[in-house]
Amino acid sequence: MSDSPCKVINGDGGYVLQDVPHLTDYIDDLTAYPNPLRSNPAYSVVKQYFVHMDDTVPEKVVVHKDSPRGIHFRRAGPRQKVYFKPEDVHACIVTCGSLCPGLNTVIREIVCGLNYMYGATRILGIDGGYRGFYSKNTIPLTTKVVNDIHKRGGTILGTSQHVHDTSKIVDNIQDRGINQVYIIGGDGTQRGASEIYQEIRRRGLKVAVAGIPKTIDNDIPVIDKSFGFDTAVEEAQRAINAAHVEAGSSENCIGVVKLMGRFCGFIAMYATLASRDVDCCLIPESPFYLEGKGGLFEYIQKRLKENGHMVIVIAEGAGQELVSESLQSTNQQDASGNELFQDVGLWISQKIKDHFAKLDKMPINLKYIDPTYMIRAIPSNASDNVYCTLLAQSAVHGAMAGYTGFTVGLVNGRQTYIPFNRVTEKQNKVVITDRMWARLLSSTNQPSFLGTKEVRGKHEKPSTKLLNGVNCREKTCN
Amino acid sequence: MSDSPCKVINGDGGYVLQDVPHLTDYIDDLTAYPNPLRSNPAYSVVKQYFVHMDDTVPEKVVVHKDSPRGIHFRRAGPRQKVYFKPEDVHACIVTCGSLCPGLNTVIREIVCGLNYMYGATRILGIDGGYRGFYSKNTIPLTTKVVNDIHKRGGTILGTSQHVHDTSKIVDNIQDRGINQVYIIGGDGTQRGASEIYQEIRRRGLKVAVAGIPKTIDNDIPVIDKSFGFDTAVEEAQRAINAAHVEAGSSENCIGVVKLMGRFCGFIAMYATLASRDVDCCLIPESPFYLEGKGGLFEYIQKRLKENGHMVIVIAEGAGQELVSESLQSTNQQDASGNELFQDVGLWISQKIKDHFAKLDKMPINLKYIDPTYMIRAIPSNASDNVYCTLLAQSAVHGAMAGYTGFTVGLVNGRQTYIPFNRVTEKQNKVVITDRMWARLLSSTNQPSFLGTKEVRGKHEKPSTKLLNGVNCREKTCN
Amino acid sequence: MSDSPCKVINGDGGYVLQDVPHLTDYIDDLTAYPNPLRSNPAYSVVKQYFVHMDDTVPEKVVVHKDSPRGIHFRRAGPRQKVYFKPEDVHACIVTCGSLCPGLNTVIREIVCGLNYMYGATRILGIDGGYRGFYSKNTIPLTTKVVNDIHKRGGTILGTSQHVHDTSKIVDNIQDRGINQVYIIGGDGTQRGASEIYQEIRRRGLKVAVAGIPKTIDNDIPVIDKSFGFDTAVEEAQRAINAAHVEAGSSENCIGVVKLMGRFCGFIAMYATLASRDVDCCLIPESPFYLEGKGGLFEYIQKRLKENGHMVIVIAEGAGQELVSESLQSTNQQDASGNELFQDVGLWISQKIKDHFAKLDKMPINLKYIDPTYMIRAIPSNASDNVYCTLLAQSAVHGAMAGYTGFTVGLVNGRQTYIPFNRVTEKQNKVVITDRMWARLLSSTNQPSFLGTKEVRGKHEKPSTKLLNGVNCREKTCN
Amino acid sequence: MSDSPCKVINGDGGYVLQDVPHLTDYIDDLTAYPNPLRSNPAYSVVKQYFVHMDDTVPEKVVVHKDSPRGIHFRRAGPRQKVYFKPEDVHACIVTCGSLCPGLNTVIREIVCGLNYMYGATRILGIDGGYRGFYSKNTIPLTTKVVNDIHKRGGTILGTSQHVHDTSKIVDNIQDRGINQVYIIGGDGTQRGASEIYQEIRRRGLKVAVAGIPKTIDNDIPVIDKSFGFDTAVEEAQRAINAAHVEAGSSENCIGVVKLMGRFCGFIAMYATLASRDVDCCLIPESPFYLEGKGGLFEYIQKRLKENGHMVIVIAEGAGQELVSESLQSTNQQDASGNELFQDVGLWISQKIKDHFAKLDKMPINLKYIDPTYMIRAIPSNASDNVYCTLLAQSAVHGAMAGYTGFTVGLVNGRQTYIPFNRVTEKQNKVVITDRMWARLLSSTNQPSFLGTKEVRGKHEKPSTKLLNGVNCREKTCN
Repeated sequence: MSDSPCKVINGDGGYVLQDVPHLTDYIDDLTAYPNPLRSNPAYSVVKQYFVHMDDTVPEKVVVHKDSPRGIHFRRAGPRQKVYFKPEDVHACIVTCGSLCPGLNTVIREIVCGLNYMYGATRILGIDGGYRGFYSKNTIPLTTKVVNDIHKRGGTILGTSQHVHDTSKIVDNIQDRGINQVYIIGGDGTQRGASEIYQEIRRRGLKVAVAGIPKTIDNDIPVIDKSFGFDTAVEEAQRAINAAHVEAGSSENCIGVVKLMGRFCGFIAMYATLASRDVDCCLIPESPFYLEGKGGLFEYIQKRLKENGHMVIVIAEGAGQELVSESLQSTNQQDASGNELFQDVGLWISQKIKDHFAKLDKMPINLKYIDPTYMIRAIPSNASDNVYCTLLAQSAVHGAMAGYTGFTVGLVNGRQTYIPFNRVTEKQNKVVITDRMWARLLSSTNQPSFLGTKEVRGKHEKPSTKLLNGVNCREKTCN
Repeated sequence: MSDSPCKVINGDGGYVLQDVPHLTDYIDDLTAYPNPLRSNPAYSVVKQYFVHMDDTVPEKVVVHKDSPRGIHFRRAGPRQKVYFKPEDVHACIVTCGSLCPGLNTVIREIVCGLNYMYGATRILGIDGGYRGFYSKNTIPLTTKVVNDIHKRGGTILGTSQHVHDTSKIVDNIQDRGINQVYIIGGDGTQRGASEIYQEIRRRGLKVAVAGIPKTIDNDIPVIDKSFGFDTAVEEAQRAINAAHVEAGSSENCIGVVKLMGRFCGFIAMYATLASRDVDCCLIPESPFYLEGKGGLFEYIQKRLKENGHMVIVIAEGAGQELVSESLQSTNQQDASGNELFQDVGLWISQKIKDHFAKLDKMPINLKYIDPTYMIRAIPSNASDNVYCTLLAQSAVHGAMAGYTGFTVGLVNGRQTYIPFNRVTEKQNKVVITDRMWARLLSSTNQPSFLGTKEVRGKHEKPSTKLLNGVNCREKTCN
Repeated sequence: MSDSPCKVINGDGGYVLQDVPHLTDYIDDLTAYPNPLRSNPAYSVVKQYFVHMDDTVPEKVVVHKDSPRGIHFRRAGPRQKVYFKPEDVHACIVTCGSLCPGLNTVIREIVCGLNYMYGATRILGIDGGYRGFYSKNTIPLTTKVVNDIHKRGGTILGTSQHVHDTSKIVDNIQDRGINQVYIIGGDGTQRGASEIYQEIRRRGLKVAVAGIPKTIDNDIPVIDKSFGFDTAVEEAQRAINAAHVEAGSSENCIGVVKLMGRFCGFIAMYATLASRDVDCCLIPESPFYLEGKGGLFEYIQKRLKENGHMVIVIAEGAGQELVSESLQSTNQQDASGNELFQDVGLWISQKIKDHFAKLDKMPINLKYIDPTYMIRAIPSNASDNVYCTLLAQSAVHGAMAGYTGFTVGLVNGRQTYIPFNRVTEKQNKVVITDRMWARLLSSTNQPSFLGTKEVRGKHEKPSTKLLNGVNCREKTCN
Repeated sequence: MSDSPCKVINGDGGYVLQDVPHLTDYIDDLTAYPNPLRSNPAYSVVKQYFVHMDDTVPEKVVVHKDSPRGIHFRRAGPRQKVYFKPEDVHACIVTCGSLCPGLNTVIREIVCGLNYMYGATRILGIDGGYRGFYSKNTIPLTTKVVNDIHKRGGTILGTSQHVHDTSKIVDNIQDRGINQVYIIGGDGTQRGASEIYQEIRRRGLKVAVAGIPKTIDNDIPVIDKSFGFDTAVEEAQRAINAAHVEAGSSENCIGVVKLMGRFCGFIAMYATLASRDVDCCLIPESPFYLEGKGGLFEYIQKRLKENGHMVIVIAEGAGQELVSESLQSTNQQDASGNELFQDVGLWISQKIKDHFAKLDKMPINLKYIDPTYMIRAIPSNASDNVYCTLLAQSAVHGAMAGYTGFTVGLVNGRQTYIPFNRVTEKQNKVVITDRMWARLLSSTNQPSFLGTKEVRGKHEKPSTKLLNGVNCREKTCN
């Protein structure tokens, strides 16, 4: 057991493998068994079904002829050997944090994966997030119970914000004899999962801890894209369309749509790029200002004069410093430890109304739409359904194979196992000096709200990163 | 000018770059200009906006510590230098083959990309596919004309199957003074594009030819996924749901859904995996048989006895050898040179009905659904809209930078330029000895219709491929 | 007990009430009880909740100052007295015939209505249509079982075509002690229900028989509209849109959509009127011909020359005499006694292709879409959900009040009880000499396929009907 | 010219016709022409196409054997004679008030109706509501311009709230030589239309004024249902579903959905009845209270204890007296003269949170959804599309036939012409002593918030109405 956040293996040509822990790292003499998939009829005719023990996936795929090979992750998938007998498996699943399309699909596929692939049938649902570990109620999960749940939004297990007491949770895991823990949640939840894993390791328990990262905002780093994100961007189109229709039907009318994204603007950015009806997209990563030359009010006035109407998309975390100033309020903390944001959509709507009320000649209409819950609560679309299935199966394969302290994640199109620290150490953000954001600016024609100098000062890292031939943020789409 | 299908550059550690042609390869003394994006306000604050001239993307990303580095493609994106002055650009766009969600978005974004990014405004739409090159009608394309077309299915340019006369097309390109040709179509179309490029090169014309691969079936190799595929899989859910409801409401009822896929079963496979209501999925890559032990009829009978109903998804190209035998008919050829397939959905429905009509004790109901046109004709969803935008912009950047004879494509999550021959030399197919198909078999519980021996015999290549540490078919999702 | 098909009560001014039977008509000394709704908290504050015993609804509402008052039906709704004690109720529900959106909602609301309004809880679902009466399996129906079924298409009870043996069914009703029979189905089913009622009456049983008319085709007379019809017309728009997009994307392309309607063209007509993208709508009521002047081929050729594409909607029962001639086949009978129709959509598609194949100069494309099962299998929309609720509750109120041998139905916007014979004696049809069809002709610009003379000859009745100041067919929308 | 609000014609048996004005009422010697529909090919074969001059439709259809015949309206439809030559028609169309699904369909069908049915082609769109009459901009409306607009939400003419200057508007009508005015809007707009008609009549102008009543809230009396209402109820299901999913996924979670309905709760009531997932529906017509026995808080607490979650639907005008008290604010007036309502959804959400924050043992979650703009802005569904078509055509037939000062409306399933005063003199409201509301109470199990005594006191009229055998509010669905 070491203090280093993850196991590192080095190779030639700058090859680095950031590996995930394994039960055998801290438990001696564990028995391994042949993988029962060998005798599964669905898999029996498949050659090369098991992942080669040396398969890894590079974190960065834009390379030069002479680049160092860089960081790699272990490829996910079934192994020749497993460390649990099917009849000994006692798994539990917990969902934490806000709703996200696909939660039920992940739950379903962990249950079906354990059952149909490995013959493991003892699976508990923890009720209502981490705190459900201390409560008496649990939800027995069978393939029958989960059969149709992927067609429903929400989570059948319930959820809550992630205050948790690591020690009590691990006590409970021990008491119940649970030996596989599947934890579905965002960065706070994954930090909790990491602490649970460490406590389990400290106690020397044979319990595998697997995380499935969940964030509708797409703010988890390293991975290509979080599940439910596509579905959310799709559903956001309805709100943008409505804002566009409303704006287009009244004189000097502004449609304002608030979308999810506390710390990052991915949903706002992609929804804007997909729609093509948006005139301005405001995200947390790109500071803006209201008054004066190059400010938002000036741009609004210009668009209304040109077009008679406009659509603004704003991420919930955009302009927080302006809101704070404006409200002169110290931020409160909510139960999850996140800052309790003021509703930026209501705030900016009021600001715009106040500004134009002062201008005699330009009475405006403003229609504010907040589709947040209507987006979060829908079932995942087909693409996310398949994605959730693969994540769930990868988690099951990993836990069965004795890996622990990992999250599953898609990296450059491949399922991998990623050490917890890599997904919790920072947040994924829109890099506003990258091309995806430039695309957006080009599509909306909005001002950048930034002088060249300021940008240079703020974002010095990318240029050094590029020595590696890599621009790590443009992962999803470019 | 060489006979080799593509330009190859080798590096250390087994690094290979399969490069695309450039106008300067066969035209001397071409003038290069600074990229006008430098003065575009949307891009002015972006650092590192231009793609580094050495950026490449590996074809394979599952690697071992000691793997050779393998084949790479040139990364797509804007270059420091362009080879066309905006005012000299005279572009044309043509769409060929069957409908696919997203065609209009690609058209829109080529027009908007040329116009908003580079200030190029002379753009012609070719009417009705390749043959439109010989007709007098063309469709002038402005940003205003294309403004809302991404919300409509189909293609505003019209389309047709791809018989074409390379020489006449190039004559026409010359006559009209066109210097950028954007060709959107499937593998046959891309072969045509390749011939057009070669004829242009032979004549020494300064005309860039860029392909945007279009195939709702996802049968184009190398790339991660074709545009419109996600939308198609999503829409296919409706048909599967209907089949499921119909089947569940009558005794011994079988819902049969035919989905697209002449030579490959990707839509059928993903639609099945996304739905979870399908009991049997039949695709061209996995031969099946009807009668006897392990056959389809036996399985149907078993499922009906267990469940009272079942859902079968069949790709249009599945079981062609059975259809042929059964109909004892010689295949006709359609205009595109593809085999004119008999409708396998009607055929199998009749076969099943006939079989059970002979069994006294088991009167069945069968409901056959062919949603093909209802799937093809819808507008692209948000995810495909963004994807189409990136493809279109990559094509524009490439042509402006003087590249030619290439298609754009997403490779391991990155936009790249791929030599024509790589996307036309073979077709992308479901590898039935890989895990994605095993997942499907596991989810449906259908028989594999194959003895172990037969599989081994048929598919020997994968094991050698794995020497490269790569299992090349599981690109999209694993 | 009389031979007359229904009880008739006459009044002044030509007032006629076509009443429905009541258990007291043939059973003496039945005890009546106060309606338990009086003590239901939801209803306790409602004044005038019970329907006045004399409330009736006229069949015809277009009247003149001096018109006779005409035929009326008894208004549906709760009565002061009921003839069943809640604890004595033993109800059963059966669904027959083809799927139709809303079946599950009707089932749900009969169960909830009996339970929540009257406190009756013994309710059986008959499995798989009429023949389920002879089988041992029944489905116990509780409010919990039916709680979410209105969100699913199909019928949880299963269905089948309506061959039935009245005597065996009534034996079974007697054996099980059932005293309320709710029968959901089309005209054949309602004829069966009528026979069951008559047999029950002959045996002198205290069993109420209530029909809920179900016909996606809207072919049941007297009532304003059948449940599921709106949902079907809505869903049909998808197919028409797809046909429109396909047709518009190829040269000389014809999109053909087959819609439901064996004997009447309501779905085709309303879907056409709602869409506005249809160039020709063919229905059973309006004979057409293919060749020669004023024929379909001539019109197609004209439209293709003008527009380059067109959309044809054809009801499944249209042109049956042409199909018959063409196929020179004697009609077979299916299990329901309906004629087994040849697929007119495939037939006409082939005819059109053959015709234009002979014309050298006009190669056409034709895309045929049959969305039948995709329409039938969806859940009912909000409007149909409310409608189904009212129908179900009306049926429950009627049976509890001792009425029998009736179907419920909306007449001029009011829930009524209609004697069986009125809904089975003939079919509702589009009257092609009325304005709704004229509206359609005007919107499509299609030829009428009829000489003035022919129309006069065929439809002589309407003019006499108009002596009553009424044009009885334009019920739904004018 | 008289002071009476409408022309009344009496007949035997208590028959009353509330007729609409006609241009000949105040202009002598008007020339009548044969209806050009006679020579329209679509109508040429139709017999009895023209509405009989004596056709009328009763307002009330629940009758007794000996009821008086009551009030009737003139049936809408084409007449034998028209009072405008096609080439002399100069029509204008204006849309006022808030958005409502179907506005564009009505516009389209007035244009197409005038053009295709009557050959009238001079049609102006007034820009941005009534005030557009004074502005220079108008929108020429051709069948080409309106061809696809029914697939879009909003109104292509723009709209605004209805302050208007009757005299200036009529000046403008005179100046432009307009002779047919089509006015689409709610009760305030129809009052304006009535004033415009009266001013036109005072000036003796040959100008027909036709209203098409528009109210998403369904608050216009006499008519069966307003266009767009069905679409709105359908779309509201999404918000209720989202609230249900959110509520079901957290402990003690309350989903609150605010729906349209300033003065009446029809959307809330029907959306609740259609959904079946709502636990409490609050509307303006049914006063409620928060605290104490039988209050809302008590009920919430009870539901959360039983179920762990609940869904509340609240109409925007519900509980206004509570909001007013609570905010101790005098109501402001908005531009339309309606009271500027405080947002009751935000208010009640805060009240509920505050209440439960005081109860130690019951921490709750509350998710508030306001889908108003997302509902208003969608295109009309198929059913509303057909309905809008009939309304538009009825208006065109009426104006061509010389009727004026009327609105069109569906009465008991038939298109009629209704004098303005009947649709403006009061508002349609949910009658909470009627059965539809009892149905709702029964389906939600919510308290009635009312003592029996209070109800009696408040609603004395219905009992006298019932002397007519009629319960006039249950028009739409019972």
